[in-house]
Amino acid sequence: MAETRWLDEREERAWRGLMAMQDGLTEFLDRRLRTRCGLSGADFEVLAHLSEAPDGCLRPFVLGRSLGWEKSRLSQHLGRMERRGLVSRDRCPTDQRGAVVTITPHGRELVEAAAPRHVADVREAVVDHLTPEELETLAAVSDTVRARLAALDERRAEP
Amino acid sequence: MAETRWLDEREERAWRGLMAMQDGLTEFLDRRLRTRCGLSGADFEVLAHLSEAPDGCLRPFVLGRSLGWEKSRLSQHLGRMERRGLVSRDRCPTDQRGAVVTITPHGRELVEAAAPRHVADVREAVVDHLTPEELETLAAVSDTVRARLAALDERRAEP
Repeated sequence: MAETRWLDEREERAWRGLMAMQDGLTEFLDRRLRTRCGLSGADFEVLAHLSEAPDGCLRPFVLGRSLGWEKSRLSQHLGRMERRGLVSRDRCPTDQRGAVVTITPHGRELVEAAAPRHVADVREAVVDHLTPEELETLAAVSDTVRARLAALDERRAEP
Repeated sequence: MAETRWLDEREERAWRGLMAMQDGLTEFLDRRLRTRCGLSGADFEVLAHLSEAPDGCLRPFVLGRSLGWEKSRLSQHLGRMERRGLVSRDRCPTDQRGAVVTITPHGRELVEAAAPRHVADVREAVVDHLTPEELETLAAVSDTVRARLAALDERRAEP
């Protein structure tokens, strides 16, 4: 193994900061959603993506890619959401190529009730406190990192 | 409730991007650590913080704040790590004020073996692909958001 290049001070500050921000944010948003709306943060993310899709349905592969989730995690989580009546897994009227995940009327009701409160939480904790330039940079960084992760994942999938 | 201010396009792109990046990163790093080092991402974060502290020990409050974790999550996770012999919870030789968490020799061995690989993963997925300006902005955004979360948490703690 090549000699280790440890993080320098700037890299360390950015990296540790990102990790702590993400843990803190996940907990904050999850707690707010659970106590006020009866949904976890993960439930909300899934329902929000589905509710915006045509006919409220998406192929699992597409949903997983948008969420940044692995197949096994997505599949387990969708199973739990299906048992709670939030989504169904079946055929989509406009896509005959395979199984799709569809939001149920109950799931749509919950996510529509939760969305205004969730966006207020997101503004209160993050969005309203960042400059336009910081928002642009966050989006660009996220694009870069997601492209890297996709490349690393493809390399892993090779025989 | 006030009228909802939905996210505009720039805000939405930054926010969705951050969420997807964080989910993707967590899974990638966790998978790498588990398969190569027998530690979860959460184990690694705890051990890394402890291993850098004087005498390898920290008060739980301080550790939780650095990690961005809630008290109950930290306590449960430390219990599991204690049963696996990675940390102990006891008195610290240099801090008589209360219980502290200490890294065990076994925990130190594992985190020292994992660290060079982990830093290589962090470079491969993130740090080596961002500009110095992007790293600075990430650190600043993280400081802003963590200060907001701390303020919101204090407000919640008020009677």
